[in-house]
Amino acid sequence: SNSKKLLVLPGDGVGPEVVHEVRRVIDWMNRRGLASFEVEEGLVGGAAIDAEGTPCSDDTVARARAADAVLFGSVGGPKWDGLPFEQRPELGILRLRQELGLFANLRPATVLAPLASASSLKAEIVSGLDIMIVRETTGGIYFGEPRGVETMADGKRRGIDTEVYTEDEIARVARVGFELARSRNNRLTSIDKANVMQSGRLWRAVVGEVGKAEFPDVELSNMYADNCAMQLASNPRQFDVILAGNLFGDVLSDLAAALTGSLGMLPSATLGAPDASGKRHALYEPIHGSAPDIAGKGVANPCAQMLSFAMLLRWSFGMEGDARRIETAVNNVLSGGLRTADIMSPGTARVGTSVMGDAILREL
Amino acid sequence: SNSKKLLVLPGDGVGPEVVHEVRRVIDWMNRRGLASFEVEEGLVGGAAIDAEGTPCSDDTVARARAADAVLFGSVGGPKWDGLPFEQRPELGILRLRQELGLFANLRPATVLAPLASASSLKAEIVSGLDIMIVRETTGGIYFGEPRGVETMADGKRRGIDTEVYTEDEIARVARVGFELARSRNNRLTSIDKANVMQSGRLWRAVVGEVGKAEFPDVELSNMYADNCAMQLASNPRQFDVILAGNLFGDVLSDLAAALTGSLGMLPSATLGAPDASGKRHALYEPIHGSAPDIAGKGVANPCAQMLSFAMLLRWSFGMEGDARRIETAVNNVLSGGLRTADIMSPGTARVGTSVMGDAILREL
Ligand SMILES: CC(C)[C@H](C(=O)O)[C@@H](O)C(=O)O
Ligand SMILES: CC(C)[C@H](C(=O)O)[C@@H](O)C(=O)O
Repeated sequence: SNSKKLLVLPGDGVGPEVVHEVRRVIDWMNRRGLASFEVEEGLVGGAAIDAEGTPCSDDTVARARAADAVLFGSVGGPKWDGLPFEQRPELGILRLRQELGLFANLRPATVLAPLASASSLKAEIVSGLDIMIVRETTGGIYFGEPRGVETMADGKRRGIDTEVYTEDEIARVARVGFELARSRNNRLTSIDKANVMQSGRLWRAVVGEVGKAEFPDVELSNMYADNCAMQLASNPRQFDVILAGNLFGDVLSDLAAALTGSLGMLPSATLGAPDASGKRHALYEPIHGSAPDIAGKGVANPCAQMLSFAMLLRWSFGMEGDARRIETAVNNVLSGGLRTADIMSPGTARVGTSVMGDAILREL
Repeated sequence: SNSKKLLVLPGDGVGPEVVHEVRRVIDWMNRRGLASFEVEEGLVGGAAIDAEGTPCSDDTVARARAADAVLFGSVGGPKWDGLPFEQRPELGILRLRQELGLFANLRPATVLAPLASASSLKAEIVSGLDIMIVRETTGGIYFGEPRGVETMADGKRRGIDTEVYTEDEIARVARVGFELARSRNNRLTSIDKANVMQSGRLWRAVVGEVGKAEFPDVELSNMYADNCAMQLASNPRQFDVILAGNLFGDVLSDLAAALTGSLGMLPSATLGAPDASGKRHALYEPIHGSAPDIAGKGVANPCAQMLSFAMLLRWSFGMEGDARRIETAVNNVLSGGLRTADIMSPGTARVGTSVMGDAILREL
């Protein structure tokens, strides 16, 4: 059949509220015959801990694997903060990345024209910003062994983590970065600490080899992670696509996001490797957290979740036209002056989650 | 005797030029009887590679160990970029940190009133910024074993680094952070990725224990590294003292520096543990690099090197009054409207390295 199977994991906090607005768009697309989505919901994060005793059950993993795409809300909250390391809500997302092989996290950092003044940076530094960060998400120090806290002979504790990257892991995420650069402004900046890290030295070598052999047309440069943080803060528009490992990618993608001043607007995609039939696992989520302080109040910004769904249409189903329609609808609603509380500015009208959802649907 | 032994390591690029301006201040202090400095010069970085075949010779290490304090310029340049990993100019600073046990890097990020408009951030976000970052510099992933690039059974390469922290390493740098917080606004924010890293979990536990046992009066909070990058970019004035391990400290201290918009102004100190007599090894350096593009042109900003010397007076010799005098002199020169090229703004007068040095000396 032509029907597309989605697993929706709303999670905690504002997750269910913002996911709800996307469900309305999905229903509308089904009704209009634009697509035939079969939607299942599942539990993840704190909600899953409460119901199933674990942040991401085997059943949820199996259903995610069986789905064509996963739409993820957000997880965590004070209720679960006291739990031991192995039982935290965030482990839900880490497990999904690992089990589904979701190795390439795509993190756009864009400043939409109506929101340029929301940034902490001067408008002349950020307006029109459009960076794509590709972060590796199944390797590096997040999963390398050995890891643990051990007690030494003298009775003192010692904490250990291992950063490991194989050349294949580096090459496959580098290819994602190069391909993206080709579809944009043809420039890739690869990040490492090759001056102090051995995995960084290999990272730089392999990215260079892949570039030379397969993407000689893409302009590749290398930058140390500390310098990249500096450059992002002072002159972010110099970048087109940034490629980084798991840990640097985590910090730098959040930094780039913060520069835009509108975290409630930013989506992400995390992609696996295509199988023989070309199908790839993929998960889409807003970059904002579960925002427990405003959860249940109907004031959360649904745009990042909505734009995550647009990424889903683009990357999982090649529905570029529909993806663009949603992106344009969001942009138009903002241009029209509607704002949720997080992106308010003088002269705009403050609305809640569902009114924002209504307005986006109306634009569509 | 009362004489204070300084080892001056100008290094490469603009290092020698900006160090020269500090030498003038040292000579002036000696002449005026404000202090009795005995100054030796040595080689480090590319200059040392060229002369001695290594970025930091055993002899230089021995002289650094024998000195009361080391004043360091900056290292590196295109000439040495092609060298293999183990022979790069930067290894000079890494070796000195390691051999002298310089574990606590103090990185102020301050926005001086005359330079508030130099930042890429809006003035209302950064003006008056005054953060102190304490970065651990002898442990973590910079030095942990095993590390290396190896070839696996299948012929593919694999890069490995190990992040290791013992509780003693964490506790001693935490104490530096807590002490500093006490001398400032009494707030310490400790950075980790305790949600994914085991060394981060231990980091958070030990900092908490030290705080509870020895600094219950200091307000301690914990923050994930990715969130810290976000918070620095969006609302940097929320911080007083930030404490971080080697790798996060590297990235976050450079980020904080970039926020100020005046890298040419920022000094740093790296301190060792006091011995039985209270003496500690210490190295002082500007945070800017060797800036090969402007080296030899007489246009480099000597202020960061000058302020590094002020830190030297404060931290190695307890000469708080003299440190303040230098800091005030620099501030006054800027208020008077003199600027080197890197910090120019409309309505100010552009001067070179030595005229800036003259003006600072005149203020003193
Ligand atoms: C929740 C946490 C484990 C996660 C990470 O560090 O990867 C988050 O920061 C992210 O970027 O998705
Ligand atoms: C030169 C390099 C090894 C060094 C580091 O990463 O520590 C530098 O970035 C610094 O911060 O002093």
